[in-house]
Amino acid sequence: MPDSRQLPVIQPGQGLPPIFDKIAIIGLGLIGGSIALAARELWPKGLVIAVDTKDVLEEAMVRGAIDVAADDLVVAAEADLVILAAPVRQNIALLEQLQKDVTGSAVITDVSSAKRAVVDAARHLPARFTFIGGHPLGGAARGGFTHARPDLFRDRPWIFTPHTDGSGEALEKLYQFVTALGARPTTMTPAQHDRLLAYVSHLPQLAASALMEVVGGTAGVEGLALAGRGLVDTTRLASSPANVWKDVCATNADEIGAALDTLIGRLTELRADLGHGDVLEEIFDQASRSRDELMKGRS
Amino acid sequence: MPDSRQLPVIQPGQGLPPIFDKIAIIGLGLIGGSIALAARELWPKGLVIAVDTKDVLEEAMVRGAIDVAADDLVVAAEADLVILAAPVRQNIALLEQLQKDVTGSAVITDVSSAKRAVVDAARHLPARFTFIGGHPLGGAARGGFTHARPDLFRDRPWIFTPHTDGSGEALEKLYQFVTALGARPTTMTPAQHDRLLAYVSHLPQLAASALMEVVGGTAGVEGLALAGRGLVDTTRLASSPANVWKDVCATNADEIGAALDTLIGRLTELRADLGHGDVLEEIFDQASRSRDELMKGRS
Repeated sequence: MPDSRQLPVIQPGQGLPPIFDKIAIIGLGLIGGSIALAARELWPKGLVIAVDTKDVLEEAMVRGAIDVAADDLVVAAEADLVILAAPVRQNIALLEQLQKDVTGSAVITDVSSAKRAVVDAARHLPARFTFIGGHPLGGAARGGFTHARPDLFRDRPWIFTPHTDGSGEALEKLYQFVTALGARPTTMTPAQHDRLLAYVSHLPQLAASALMEVVGGTAGVEGLALAGRGLVDTTRLASSPANVWKDVCATNADEIGAALDTLIGRLTELRADLGHGDVLEEIFDQASRSRDELMKGRS
Repeated sequence: MPDSRQLPVIQPGQGLPPIFDKIAIIGLGLIGGSIALAARELWPKGLVIAVDTKDVLEEAMVRGAIDVAADDLVVAAEADLVILAAPVRQNIALLEQLQKDVTGSAVITDVSSAKRAVVDAARHLPARFTFIGGHPLGGAARGGFTHARPDLFRDRPWIFTPHTDGSGEALEKLYQFVTALGARPTTMTPAQHDRLLAYVSHLPQLAASALMEVVGGTAGVEGLALAGRGLVDTTRLASSPANVWKDVCATNADEIGAALDTLIGRLTELRADLGHGDVLEEIFDQASRSRDELMKGRS
C-alpha cells in the first residue's frame, strides 16, 4: 500500500498530468467538495464537473472548487471518472440514471459509508463502465460543502471494494488518484467493509447522537453549561446530518443492528451491576486496553 | 458567583496570605495532586500536608507539590482544611477516621463525583468540624498524580453542596480558595448534583467505556487502525480508572441507573427503526440542537 507520508508535498498549480481528464462529482457535500478542491489544486489541466443544487454550485464556483456546474447529470456525459458523492440511497438511484446520461466508458466510484447495497446495484451497469466502490474515511463532524477542504483525506484510509476481476487497471488509477489526494488506499470486500464500519464508525455515531439527545433533554441549557470536556468530546459527532445517516443505517441495517445489540446488551449488564461493579471493571479494563490500541501510532 | 476570568493572573511565589494555613489532602490523585500543586504555587507561606502511599508521596515531593508527607492521617491533626480526595467510598470511610486523628476545628471538604452518600455520612461528624461537600469538574482522561497539574481547575466549575445553615463562613473561605485555583464555584443540593452529574458526566463515561469495549472487541487491532477521529474523540474517556468509577456508580446507582435506562431505551427504539429512520431523525435533530447548546460560549 502506498504511504502518502513518503510522497512529495503537493505543489498547487504545478501542472501534473491529470490521472483522469474529466472528473464528474455528483453531490458537493463535505466529501465531494473536498475531492473537487483537491483535484483543482493538483491538476489544473484537468476538468472538474459538478452536479448539485444551484446554491451549492454557486458557493463552489466562488471558492474555485469546480470548472463546470450543472443541476443535471447530462453535464457528465464525457467524464472518464464519475464520483457518486450523495447519500447512499441517492448514489444507488444515480447508478440507474448514469446509464442514460454518461455516454463514454467511464470509471465509476462512490464514497458511500455502506458498500454492499451500492456494489450490488452496480452489477447491473452496462459493460462500458468499470465500477469500483470506495469509501474515504474523511471524518469531520459537520457535513456540507461549507466544511469541505482539500486536505480532508490526508493520511486517512480510503477503502475500495472491487468486486470483479476486470477492474485491475481502473483500481490502479483510483489508487493513484486518492494517493495524490493524500489518502492511504486499501481494499476489502463489501461485506468486510460493512461489518467493520458498523463498529468503528456507524455505532460510535449512533451512540454519540443518542447520548447527546438523552443528556441534553435532561440536563437542559444550565446543566450543559456545567459539563466538562468529557461530554464535549464524547458527543462531537452529534452534529452529523440525519439524512446521510438514515441512508447508512437503512443500507447496513443488519450489521449496525448486531453492533447496537451488543452495545445495548453490555449497557444492560452494566446497569444491573452498578452497586457491585464487576461488569464495570470488566468493561473499563477491556476499554482501556482497546483505547491504547486505538491510539497506538496516532500523533 | 465570582468570575475567575476577571481575576488577576496568579503570580507564583507572590506570597499571598494563605486562605487556609495548613491544608491536608488525603489522596494525591489527579484532583488531590492538582490542588496540592496549585496551593504550593499560590501560598508559599501555607503548609500542604499529604496522605497517600509512599510511591505517590515521593513523586509529589520531587515535583514540589507538598511540604509534609505521611501514610497516616495523624499527620493532618492540626490542619485547618482537610480535603478528602480518594475514591468516594474511601472518602466516606475517612470521615470516620478523621474524628480520631484531626484534633482541631477544621473545615472538611471532599472532591467526590457523587455527593449524597458523602454528605449523609458527614452528618455524624462532631460539631468542631464544618463539612461542606465539593466537586471540582476538572476533567482529564487519565487519573493519578502523574497527570496532576496546577491549572487543572482553571475556568472549570467547582460545585459545593452545603447542607447546614452554619456553614456560611466556611463556604465563603472555600469559594475564595477554589477561585484562587482558577475555578468557578457554585452551589446546589447533593440531590441536584447527583442527578445532574449522572447525565452530564457519569452516563457519558459509561457510554464511552462500553462503546470502546464493544468496538475494540470486534474490530481488533487492524480494524482500529482504520478508525477515524470520530471514534478517537467519542472514546477519549475510555482510559478512566475503574476503581474511581466503581465507587461513583455504587454511590449514585439510582440516578445513573435511570440515566442508563433512558439511553438503553432510545438505542433500542433506534435499533428497531433502522430501516425506516424516523427515530434516527428525531434523535439526530435533538442531538444537534443540544450539541449547539453545549458548545455555546465555549472556546
